[in-house]
Amino acid sequence: MKNTFGQSLAVTLFGESHGEAVGAVIDGLAPGVPVDKKEIEKLLSKRRPSSALDTARRENDEFSILSGVFEGRTTGTPLCIVIKNTNTKSGDYTYGPARPSHADYAARVKYHGNEDYRGGGHFSGRITAALVAAGGILLPALERKGIIIGTHISQCGNAKDRDFDNVMGDIITLKNADFPVLDESAKGRISDEILRAKNNLDSVGGATQTAIYGLPAGLGEPFFDSVESVLSHALFGIGGIKGVEFGLGFGFARANGSQANDPIRVDNGRVFTETNNNGGINGGITNGMPVVFRCAVKPTPSIAKEQKTVDFIKNENTSITAGGRHDPAIIRRICPVIDSVAAIAVCDLLAQRFGTDYLAGEEPVCSSV
Amino acid sequence: MKNTFGQSLAVTLFGESHGEAVGAVIDGLAPGVPVDKKEIEKLLSKRRPSSALDTARRENDEFSILSGVFEGRTTGTPLCIVIKNTNTKSGDYTYGPARPSHADYAARVKYHGNEDYRGGGHFSGRITAALVAAGGILLPALERKGIIIGTHISQCGNAKDRDFDNVMGDIITLKNADFPVLDESAKGRISDEILRAKNNLDSVGGATQTAIYGLPAGLGEPFFDSVESVLSHALFGIGGIKGVEFGLGFGFARANGSQANDPIRVDNGRVFTETNNNGGINGGITNGMPVVFRCAVKPTPSIAKEQKTVDFIKNENTSITAGGRHDPAIIRRICPVIDSVAAIAVCDLLAQRFGTDYLAGEEPVCSSV
Amino acid sequence: MKNTFGQSLAVTLFGESHGEAVGAVIDGLAPGVPVDKKEIEKLLSKRRPSSALDTARRENDEFSILSGVFEGRTTGTPLCIVIKNTNTKSGDYTYGPARPSHADYAARVKYHGNEDYRGGGHFSGRITAALVAAGGILLPALERKGIIIGTHISQCGNAKDRDFDNVMGDIITLKNADFPVLDESAKGRISDEILRAKNNLDSVGGATQTAIYGLPAGLGEPFFDSVESVLSHALFGIGGIKGVEFGLGFGFARANGSQANDPIRVDNGRVFTETNNNGGINGGITNGMPVVFRCAVKPTPSIAKEQKTVDFIKNENTSITAGGRHDPAIIRRICPVIDSVAAIAVCDLLAQRFGTDYLAGEEPVCSSV
Amino acid sequence: MKNTFGQSLAVTLFGESHGEAVGAVIDGLAPGVPVDKKEIEKLLSKRRPSSALDTARRENDEFSILSGVFEGRTTGTPLCIVIKNTNTKSGDYTYGPARPSHADYAARVKYHGNEDYRGGGHFSGRITAALVAAGGILLPALERKGIIIGTHISQCGNAKDRDFDNVMGDIITLKNADFPVLDESAKGRISDEILRAKNNLDSVGGATQTAIYGLPAGLGEPFFDSVESVLSHALFGIGGIKGVEFGLGFGFARANGSQANDPIRVDNGRVFTETNNNGGINGGITNGMPVVFRCAVKPTPSIAKEQKTVDFIKNENTSITAGGRHDPAIIRRICPVIDSVAAIAVCDLLAQRFGTDYLAGEEPVCSSV
Repeated sequence: MKNTFGQSLAVTLFGESHGEAVGAVIDGLAPGVPVDKKEIEKLLSKRRPSSALDTARRENDEFSILSGVFEGRTTGTPLCIVIKNTNTKSGDYTYGPARPSHADYAARVKYHGNEDYRGGGHFSGRITAALVAAGGILLPALERKGIIIGTHISQCGNAKDRDFDNVMGDIITLKNADFPVLDESAKGRISDEILRAKNNLDSVGGATQTAIYGLPAGLGEPFFDSVESVLSHALFGIGGIKGVEFGLGFGFARANGSQANDPIRVDNGRVFTETNNNGGINGGITNGMPVVFRCAVKPTPSIAKEQKTVDFIKNENTSITAGGRHDPAIIRRICPVIDSVAAIAVCDLLAQRFGTDYLAGEEPVCSSV
Repeated sequence: MKNTFGQSLAVTLFGESHGEAVGAVIDGLAPGVPVDKKEIEKLLSKRRPSSALDTARRENDEFSILSGVFEGRTTGTPLCIVIKNTNTKSGDYTYGPARPSHADYAARVKYHGNEDYRGGGHFSGRITAALVAAGGILLPALERKGIIIGTHISQCGNAKDRDFDNVMGDIITLKNADFPVLDESAKGRISDEILRAKNNLDSVGGATQTAIYGLPAGLGEPFFDSVESVLSHALFGIGGIKGVEFGLGFGFARANGSQANDPIRVDNGRVFTETNNNGGINGGITNGMPVVFRCAVKPTPSIAKEQKTVDFIKNENTSITAGGRHDPAIIRRICPVIDSVAAIAVCDLLAQRFGTDYLAGEEPVCSSV
Repeated sequence: MKNTFGQSLAVTLFGESHGEAVGAVIDGLAPGVPVDKKEIEKLLSKRRPSSALDTARRENDEFSILSGVFEGRTTGTPLCIVIKNTNTKSGDYTYGPARPSHADYAARVKYHGNEDYRGGGHFSGRITAALVAAGGILLPALERKGIIIGTHISQCGNAKDRDFDNVMGDIITLKNADFPVLDESAKGRISDEILRAKNNLDSVGGATQTAIYGLPAGLGEPFFDSVESVLSHALFGIGGIKGVEFGLGFGFARANGSQANDPIRVDNGRVFTETNNNGGINGGITNGMPVVFRCAVKPTPSIAKEQKTVDFIKNENTSITAGGRHDPAIIRRICPVIDSVAAIAVCDLLAQRFGTDYLAGEEPVCSSV
Repeated sequence: MKNTFGQSLAVTLFGESHGEAVGAVIDGLAPGVPVDKKEIEKLLSKRRPSSALDTARRENDEFSILSGVFEGRTTGTPLCIVIKNTNTKSGDYTYGPARPSHADYAARVKYHGNEDYRGGGHFSGRITAALVAAGGILLPALERKGIIIGTHISQCGNAKDRDFDNVMGDIITLKNADFPVLDESAKGRISDEILRAKNNLDSVGGATQTAIYGLPAGLGEPFFDSVESVLSHALFGIGGIKGVEFGLGFGFARANGSQANDPIRVDNGRVFTETNNNGGINGGITNGMPVVFRCAVKPTPSIAKEQKTVDFIKNENTSITAGGRHDPAIIRRICPVIDSVAAIAVCDLLAQRFGTDYLAGEEPVCSSV
């Protein structure tokens, strides 16, 4: 469905980097879910460029909710949230040479030159602000049901953070962290990698690790709507993500079954596995353990170094040096985007399984009905 | 949509390992596409267990096409293909202890004990025979349009094959190979890994690499229906796949933009990139280069070694040793499944972009209309 | 989705009139639903031609369930049911002249001459046997939740039946009737209309009225998935249906609000409306009253009278007299098809609203989980 | 998909009557389609209340396009159009007694009292302004491809307009008419019916007839996505529509096949039918004749007469007299809404059949690609 994701709870995205606004419509959200603008602001601030590690573009992500919220709660009808674009310097962009590793050339073939090319248009990371705004509503709603989600930078260049260990505690740590790592010392190592890239007029990639804690067992479908299918579908919608793996992921390639299988135990009626190599999913269905996955994030394509490309107006080879303002790495800013996208997918899975009221979680106003 | 995948071309799966049959309905396939039963048989034979490297279960995958084909060509209406289950030894299976790393426990929570537990039921790899049957129709249809797909074993345990190099030539090599590797010497190394696992009453995982050659630029959507989203959604439907990465994938994590970006060139009007680190996809849209991706495949969960688990009838801890007949590795047999699933996703992307007649590719019978 | 209907519970149809079989895949059906082959047979028998009022084609609708049922109950995974075609006389059909009011010409343009033209191929009423087989599973499942559905012949030519009055009682009457009318005397009048058409080498149209009793209030969506939208979408999939109206329907055109509005009352906590002109739906949402709708059914296109048409092989005007075996009216046989299609739509609405377990309705086998 | 309609071209609606704004996101629209704000304004003005026949609520439907248009043409990425609500008098509405024949009670059960009840909230006819805004973009796009759509008031109370006759000419007449009727004299008769209802503190229903001229043959699908299914699904999304019939519709009930079948002819290679009783659709597929359908529209539920209802706060019987500002009939204002909804459905059918570029219709800017 192109720019719409989800079946029972669906999110539709719109907007371009240098257009009037970006936004999202959330449909199928349960009625009566509290919406707190401060939660949305807080999550947006985590995505916002804020230091020398990020692009120089600054905007305060002023948003408004056009529909779907009444007296501080969701109505159950479509919620449209709009974020204005303010700090747009279109003069930085010209149509012609395609920026390597960006969508420019592919978009030109698809849209025949009608695409808004300024700042990547609809392909810009700017659009992910709308996803994060949606996350600012859905993540607190999930939390009220005991489901929490956290993402940390697992790797950036050669710097690495430790993996999730005590999942619940680690997610809470991330929620309060100013820099999304589990091992505090990783912040310095990662920052160094990013600054080194910046100083080299270059960029650097990374990887994230995400955990979803508190999901009930029994979500997802055996075939095409496996939990892995649904999550990866949503995650690969985020520009720059080029790999998704669950549990051991590519580490399974060299593993034996006897090591990789997760032993199942029961204790006082509670079922769990001693290890979680499967990342909380068996046969496409959640098994009640935390869902854990990693995303590979490619280096920001825009770099200040000269690169070979083609000028599509003149149809000849040329070179390009990125103008505009760019991040030397998006690995920090992508973390709240991944949390938000995971929240969308999880809310959809829950609504499919348990119906549209699952997140309502409050005494209905009209209890007699 | 649970067991249905695709929007303009959709495939619906059904069947259980030890039920009467497995099968697929293909809907939205262009009219006039030749259907050759020998092509279907040939692809099914590539998935079939055939040597000491595979399970001892043998069936000849006798199939019948119930609808959608008339006088050797597709009608354009739903095509249902059914494969009988014959060699089913249900006595090997009992309900109770969940097999670790299998869907047993998750399925039990989801289906409340009504699931067909024999041989994994609907979660069994047996169902992928229906995907391969669909592939036997779609892959030749794509080939007639110049689009070819090939998958090789990239890794198994510690043994590795080389990567795709001359993509078109490599895919043709794979089409004719009895063992899906690019470097002939890899066959021995990989076989050794599998036999070692088998002799240890164990299993071993692996990774595959797939290339799709000949796709036009401009397929896919910027956000939720990126080519990565659509392909990964379908691929993660295959049991045992726990990771999907495009191009450099997780290798991007330590890369710099200046190395990872693919320089764009034009030569005699033909646009290409000098490298293909992005795996043929930018911003979610094909760029005309081969689409290249890897899948991580976990070790077969069923092993003859004893494993800790829970008996859900008695609700107490116990241990289990896999009965039944099992593959020490599925990495060889999964290759035609991945080709088939990729074909389904690609056919859907093409139909979305160019309409329902794209694959027809033949002079219409009724040209005057 | 072409031949698939439904979001949370979906039905996919396949088959042609003179092909090997027709069938349906039901996906998303709750686990643990009892499946009684006698119920399926009974409903199929209601659709079957049985007297001088119907076509001379006779088949006993031998069916088999290929998947999704285990030990007499649904597993929760896709259920595929297949009905063999046996009594096929393909010699009656030739390709060339399009039968007026049939799909022949439209299909030829769509499928470029690749369609299976014998007996209407995939457009044949024969495919509705698969819908009725699905109904044979879903209607009893709904009944166990207190939701019952019945359809009677409202009109045929100039003969009319009375409208629903005591809805629950009327539906039970229909369940046991050999001819689907509410006023017993209507049977003779309607039979006369059909026999008169038959004797004139002609056919005759009709209208049906359906009631769904026991639906909870609060199903459906304000906009595009209104209950009317969902039901009409499914109903217009049945060949020959050319109109759908809810409650007063086209009778609203001459009504005033003061007469047409349904006064709302509460009695001992039970909310109801004094009249049901809105047919149980307000603003697209069920209000707890019976859902009542009418369908317009066109006369069988195939008649033994000569008709003007075009021969598309020769591309010239010609005339045609229907060969084959045809119904002078399908109004009786369409009633169980409408019941079945309504059941599919209702099951989907319930699954969307309350989740995938709604119809399970039985103590789960594995209650400890 | 709740508030989203369409597969290849999809429209998502949002907004409430007394919220900040109503709007729509159009996704899947071809790139390069000219967008003329004057066309949008013109269509919106046809829906706007303008005389004593309409509600006293007046707003000028100030709209802004937030995304998807660049330099006067569509980009091919999601187009979001927003219409501000200005003239909102919320004081007219109180929560408690449900207005008969409105969605109030059904909504309360569905949303548990969280719904925005002011002016009907998301159920208000106000939301149809967003559909008309979408129509203001899609209808001119279709026109450029030779496809035109027009709707007239067929009936209102006892007053009737003539049916479509010369379809192309009639649609052009309607395009320029200030009152949507084909027979000029019908305007007076219909106005009288509306004023009579108004003077009686009452409202009156009606019926519309719509024609779509210029559709190619071969659109739609045999089963669940028949053209009737797709159109009716969209049309029944409009509040107040309670019946949809194609061609003869319910008139088929008393017809014989020999009269109702449309004789097919060919003349200089052009295929047509002598009559169009099937309304341009056979077997769910367009046959190249105009698609013609009627909609039944119920009387406006809000009337100034006292009506019996229930107070859901007190849970007791009471009565209500509509406050607020209401239309004595919506039959005139619904015409551009139906045109717009038909345009959405038709654009989706075309995109499914011919791919996403069908409406682009202009020389691509980047023709070398």
